[in-house]
Amino acid sequence: MKSSLSILILLFATSSFAQSTDSITLAHFFETALTEDKAYSDLHDICKQIGPRLSGSDGASKAVVLVQKILHSLNIDSVWLQKVMVPHWVRGEKEAASIYYPGFQLKQTVPICALGGSIATPETGINAHVIEVKGLGQLQKMNPSDIKGKIVFYNEAFDQSYRETFNAYSKAVPQRWGGAMEAAPYGAVGVVVRSMAQHIDEWPHTGAMGYTDSVVKIPAVAISSKGAELLNESLKKEKDIEFFFKTSCQTRPDTTSYNVIGEIKGAEYPNEIIVIGGHLDSWDLAEGAQDDGAGVVQSIEVLRLFKTLGIKPKRTIRFVAFMNEENGGRGGAKYAEWAKTNGEKHIAAIESDAGGFTPRGFSLETNDTLRAYVQKTWKTLLDKFEIGSLDDVGAGADVDHLKGICPLLGELHPDSQRYFDFHHTGRDTWENVNDRELEMGAAAMASFVYLIDKYGLGK
Amino acid sequence: MKSSLSILILLFATSSFAQSTDSITLAHFFETALTEDKAYSDLHDICKQIGPRLSGSDGASKAVVLVQKILHSLNIDSVWLQKVMVPHWVRGEKEAASIYYPGFQLKQTVPICALGGSIATPETGINAHVIEVKGLGQLQKMNPSDIKGKIVFYNEAFDQSYRETFNAYSKAVPQRWGGAMEAAPYGAVGVVVRSMAQHIDEWPHTGAMGYTDSVVKIPAVAISSKGAELLNESLKKEKDIEFFFKTSCQTRPDTTSYNVIGEIKGAEYPNEIIVIGGHLDSWDLAEGAQDDGAGVVQSIEVLRLFKTLGIKPKRTIRFVAFMNEENGGRGGAKYAEWAKTNGEKHIAAIESDAGGFTPRGFSLETNDTLRAYVQKTWKTLLDKFEIGSLDDVGAGADVDHLKGICPLLGELHPDSQRYFDFHHTGRDTWENVNDRELEMGAAAMASFVYLIDKYGLGK
Repeated sequence: MKSSLSILILLFATSSFAQSTDSITLAHFFETALTEDKAYSDLHDICKQIGPRLSGSDGASKAVVLVQKILHSLNIDSVWLQKVMVPHWVRGEKEAASIYYPGFQLKQTVPICALGGSIATPETGINAHVIEVKGLGQLQKMNPSDIKGKIVFYNEAFDQSYRETFNAYSKAVPQRWGGAMEAAPYGAVGVVVRSMAQHIDEWPHTGAMGYTDSVVKIPAVAISSKGAELLNESLKKEKDIEFFFKTSCQTRPDTTSYNVIGEIKGAEYPNEIIVIGGHLDSWDLAEGAQDDGAGVVQSIEVLRLFKTLGIKPKRTIRFVAFMNEENGGRGGAKYAEWAKTNGEKHIAAIESDAGGFTPRGFSLETNDTLRAYVQKTWKTLLDKFEIGSLDDVGAGADVDHLKGICPLLGELHPDSQRYFDFHHTGRDTWENVNDRELEMGAAAMASFVYLIDKYGLGK
Repeated sequence: MKSSLSILILLFATSSFAQSTDSITLAHFFETALTEDKAYSDLHDICKQIGPRLSGSDGASKAVVLVQKILHSLNIDSVWLQKVMVPHWVRGEKEAASIYYPGFQLKQTVPICALGGSIATPETGINAHVIEVKGLGQLQKMNPSDIKGKIVFYNEAFDQSYRETFNAYSKAVPQRWGGAMEAAPYGAVGVVVRSMAQHIDEWPHTGAMGYTDSVVKIPAVAISSKGAELLNESLKKEKDIEFFFKTSCQTRPDTTSYNVIGEIKGAEYPNEIIVIGGHLDSWDLAEGAQDDGAGVVQSIEVLRLFKTLGIKPKRTIRFVAFMNEENGGRGGAKYAEWAKTNGEKHIAAIESDAGGFTPRGFSLETNDTLRAYVQKTWKTLLDKFEIGSLDDVGAGADVDHLKGICPLLGELHPDSQRYFDFHHTGRDTWENVNDRELEMGAAAMASFVYLIDKYGLGK
């Protein structure tokens, strides 16, 4: 009994010592990121030297070059490009939309934008009566004769009761992705989707929508949440109002682009890979600062923090700036395909694609054993830095492609309250990222990666 | 062995059941606060119907009436006013300041504001050479002959390395409070203090400063952080620059004001009090939305949530809107004095005075046993709502007066990254409070109070 107690005490002491050494390292990550503010400066360059970076655009090509340059400046072990064919959708001219009130012979313009992937309207636009539904579910209960020849207005708002705004997004977003393909068989001539917005404001939110080959393609646009409220009120008062919208977007042939990759080779287990990353492409309405310039520069900052603090990882820390997350996911798929083909051994892949806000922890996509291991081993330490929230399930869209070959997938989990004020809008600019929140996210990623690298994932 | 195992299992099951019932109640707090958005609407009324509420001002008087009215509308058991004499400082005319460059014969205006409690400059203002110090410590090493006849410019910036911005504030703020009384004995004619700002911007931050009777009073102002940077750069280039500033503030005789109190009587232990609150006064430059309208409406929301959800507390939940936290702390002192005199039994006092940002947990001022009890008993549950950060030490300035008669003092601990962009500036308006962050803070307070009320604080 006595000896096992001694062992217990020894184990406890060792573990306390390890935690306190690790605690010092984690504190250094935070202090360094916050005082040097390099991620924020990188984000400035991506946002202001380049700006929008939709797949296939000039901006996307320039971003590939810029991120390569930043990686080279870190003096890491290798930097390379991974070719990937991406879709090339272009918005064309600024969209126009208005509500016409026949009773008053009045026209009110409203802010819209084409959804990514949509076809254009005819050159003269589309003008039709409107039928409002709360979401896909309500559409499916409608009588086709009520829809034929009309514009379907999907008006399911964010459910404010969720603490986690991504849950409200997940609930409302099917109307954006599936709205056109679901409405077309009923004879709809176009769809107007309420923006995926947290608040009532004037900003339309773009985002990906889909078609299926078997169904006729009709144009789809997003309307600002304030515009949606107006349209809803107008329809309550006068069923006969007409909605007009005009878009000139088009899909061009696929084009060549790249994932940008850089790594610090592991000193002990160079063949064990820990991936970190974000996506380099963005929507075209603004600078893609929160989505996902933030994730890219935070992941770069993880490499920089390791270099600055002279930490030589045991395992290989590999940064990937994924191309085409927004409208295809081709970069994530390409990376995973390559990794599988080459038998690259991934032990963890953590991305950042939920905005550069104060970090709370990590959502994890893994088995129960590994989840329990992570929570039991590191939560107490991570809690000291207020990044110990580890209950959420899920990984980011890009690393999710590694399912099956990587036991621990995850995503930085930042505070989400303000994300859907910026997401996919003209407001997603550098100025709307708080430098300290961004840097703390970078330090949080560095902390988690450091622990995974140092201790591995148990047996 | 078997029977004790059974008891263990039973205990575990009971405790799990309790946690899951409590989890449902806490979830209801969050859902209700987020969907009904009443705290944000109350905050709107306080900010827009009234606005600034410095002690002794018309705004402060009106705020007393408004909060009384809101409390009455909740149909709680009692609402009353507690008289308190408060200081009455007024800013007077808009302040003016400029840097004069004799070499160029050029004048550059800079944004300043008088610090609360300062005397005015002469009517013609003060014009003098400037000596810069990094903080009180550096001043004390100076030669009096270098300071005599000059304006002392305190330019200690926020230390960005702290994750918790309140620590940066605590480190820098002595120069604001003590700058004038420390510089006067060296013969300084006035002091200019760098604003307690997180970022470089144009907003001067006011705040309390002090004098001592034994030392001559000299005027003190805050300069915007951008102005401080300019002044610093200017002094590096040309020691002979002159600084001019003019203020017309004055201290009037103390005046009558009130703490506003309302409570729900406990059903089982009506004599055991749990205090919640914030301070009703604010600085005069804006609407005091984050500081501390947020804390007032969040605390009111705790009462409302209990009423809305039909939760009858065992103990008395008492809301206090404290008057005069900003420049005297008279309301907090008065309440504590009254509580002591009347032998009111307080078991906990939790205030909110750190802004209406996403809640992370609670800082606690208590003994080790109670801290351990709170952490052991409730952290796991609070963590589910991401409000389980309980390591910070300290209570808010108002409930701190209850030390000695209340075993558990605490303060809501919100994310602090953006607080010092607004604190004590013209930007502290309703528009700069995020409704969801505010409501989550209210729900967090309700959650903690609910647990304390239901389970008490152990033996």
